[in-house]
Amino acid sequence: MRTIFWQDGCVKLIDQTKLPESLEILECRNVDELAMAIKRLAVRGAPALEVAGGYGVALSAFEKEFSDLNELKSHIVERARLLASTRPTAVNLSVGIERVLSKALEGDSIEEIRRIAVEEANRIADEDVKRNEKLGEFGRELFEDGDSVLTICNTGSLATVYWGTALGVIRSAVKEGKKIRVFACETRPLNQGSRLTAWELLNDGIDVTLIADSMAGIVMQKGLVNKVIVGADRIVRDGVFNKIGTYTLAILAKEHGLPFYVAAPLTTFDWGKEMKDVEIEERGREELIYCHITCKRKLIAPENVKVYNPAFDATPLKYISAIITEKGIIFPPYEKSIPNILNEGGSASST
Amino acid sequence: MRTIFWQDGCVKLIDQTKLPESLEILECRNVDELAMAIKRLAVRGAPALEVAGGYGVALSAFEKEFSDLNELKSHIVERARLLASTRPTAVNLSVGIERVLSKALEGDSIEEIRRIAVEEANRIADEDVKRNEKLGEFGRELFEDGDSVLTICNTGSLATVYWGTALGVIRSAVKEGKKIRVFACETRPLNQGSRLTAWELLNDGIDVTLIADSMAGIVMQKGLVNKVIVGADRIVRDGVFNKIGTYTLAILAKEHGLPFYVAAPLTTFDWGKEMKDVEIEERGREELIYCHITCKRKLIAPENVKVYNPAFDATPLKYISAIITEKGIIFPPYEKSIPNILNEGGSASST
Repeated sequence: MRTIFWQDGCVKLIDQTKLPESLEILECRNVDELAMAIKRLAVRGAPALEVAGGYGVALSAFEKEFSDLNELKSHIVERARLLASTRPTAVNLSVGIERVLSKALEGDSIEEIRRIAVEEANRIADEDVKRNEKLGEFGRELFEDGDSVLTICNTGSLATVYWGTALGVIRSAVKEGKKIRVFACETRPLNQGSRLTAWELLNDGIDVTLIADSMAGIVMQKGLVNKVIVGADRIVRDGVFNKIGTYTLAILAKEHGLPFYVAAPLTTFDWGKEMKDVEIEERGREELIYCHITCKRKLIAPENVKVYNPAFDATPLKYISAIITEKGIIFPPYEKSIPNILNEGGSASST
Repeated sequence: MRTIFWQDGCVKLIDQTKLPESLEILECRNVDELAMAIKRLAVRGAPALEVAGGYGVALSAFEKEFSDLNELKSHIVERARLLASTRPTAVNLSVGIERVLSKALEGDSIEEIRRIAVEEANRIADEDVKRNEKLGEFGRELFEDGDSVLTICNTGSLATVYWGTALGVIRSAVKEGKKIRVFACETRPLNQGSRLTAWELLNDGIDVTLIADSMAGIVMQKGLVNKVIVGADRIVRDGVFNKIGTYTLAILAKEHGLPFYVAAPLTTFDWGKEMKDVEIEERGREELIYCHITCKRKLIAPENVKVYNPAFDATPLKYISAIITEKGIIFPPYEKSIPNILNEGGSASST
């Protein structure tokens, strides 16, 4: 089952905030509903956001009656801007929005624009499924039978349309018969690791052990894991933006001599930018002062305490052993290998 | 106000599981009640456990009528063994129990044993207050006006009888007029950082910012902190046992070139042992699968997922810049400086 899809003029998606307690499909009938779903992380994960962005442009073309073509065009441009502002760090959301928007604006009638927008958004979703498969095929070569792998956040089906990036690589390795054990960081403060990754892996019958983020050090020290794999929200010239805590895992991996892999589609690359150019989204204090954002009965911190809650961090490329993409695995030196794969759109520097 | 004390034949203590929502005093009328309070972390923190252990022996001498002296003696020995088994990693609990037990067993009558036990336990509490003060006086020299300090867990009044160890050092530095900013790791899974440390520092008017444990890396990368200070549960020949996550902070500090300090009374040293000799307490799965152990309505992980939940980790001494004790600050090489201070019971290798 796809985790996000277009049906009956709506965007339908698995409401990730309800997991693991219940599997519910959320219907977004207009851009406001989708923007809210993105903001409260009912849908999250860089590749899923790319698809959501594309479907959002399609939604905007249907959300009212338009008197003429220009009214429609200015409406979808304006709504696209609103949608893009919901999550500033992941580049993929904007990539999806821009792609469907520019294609749709070529349409010559209201009907044509609507048709193009839905088709193009569906195409992004189809492509995501395919590129995840390719990514998994390349990436699984880095894993051996008996490996034990540490990961953070959720990079599985729920973060994409179907297969997953970092978790997709593990799935692909398992699918070809390798026995892989996963240690999943719970991923505070929103627990995508415990709520989503543990749930997906259990469903797949893959051996998973849940730990708190602060246990990554002891797990490496005791030799309980021998590799680390994470996803990415944006890859720039000097670093990888990903879920908060990734940078810490990369330093721990270096100290313990473990390989540290990033798995991400090429749309995650924003090669014109550097770490200093990217805004890191800071989220609300309620994520840290209540035991759960949906459970505001129980305070786990003084209500008036200052909170610093960045949703992402940036890991310099020097800590990263390899980047797995749908075009192949990229190894250092990245200043050569990444432009190579991006410009040629061709085969990877290795595998 | 002391956080644990003897009154009316009971051990009274602040129930730390109720904070920050309410400040409640728990009365333990017998060893079973105290053992339960220790197990569920109503009282925790290595120095507070030393005092609790001492009071526990005193409690055991009162919890029933004894027909003769031998019955009393064998009863308190048996109860001491039970009490010591509640938390295996912190050495201080056993130290407090042993100290009061051996003193009490010297008594020649039921009345005398009861009197000695209470007196000796009260003496431990008094000494803890004094040694924390000394520890703070030595330690504050390591901190300068304008410092920003990262810490984990709770090492303040609540972890001791009154002043605190690592947090006591910060308090002492602030008391002499230095402006110190604190970043407190929330300390999953039981949130001693957000529930207790943030609460204590806010009460004291010390500038505190709460972060998730996974944010320690970005906080160092952005230069938001320039020093790290933590407490300890046991210090052996080759490492420091402390709250899970400490080892990760030590590696991060090394990578960012920041000093990493440990503050602990001399009773924390267990110099005959090595890291491999110490059992690391593993706690229950419910701490990671529910949003809060007191709030079992809300699952944040699949109910049947495997969990690894060590309460402590061990940080090799090579990562530690200095150890602050009530006899002075100890610097490397520790294989010389620690035995020096332990054997001579004298002045520190420095300050």
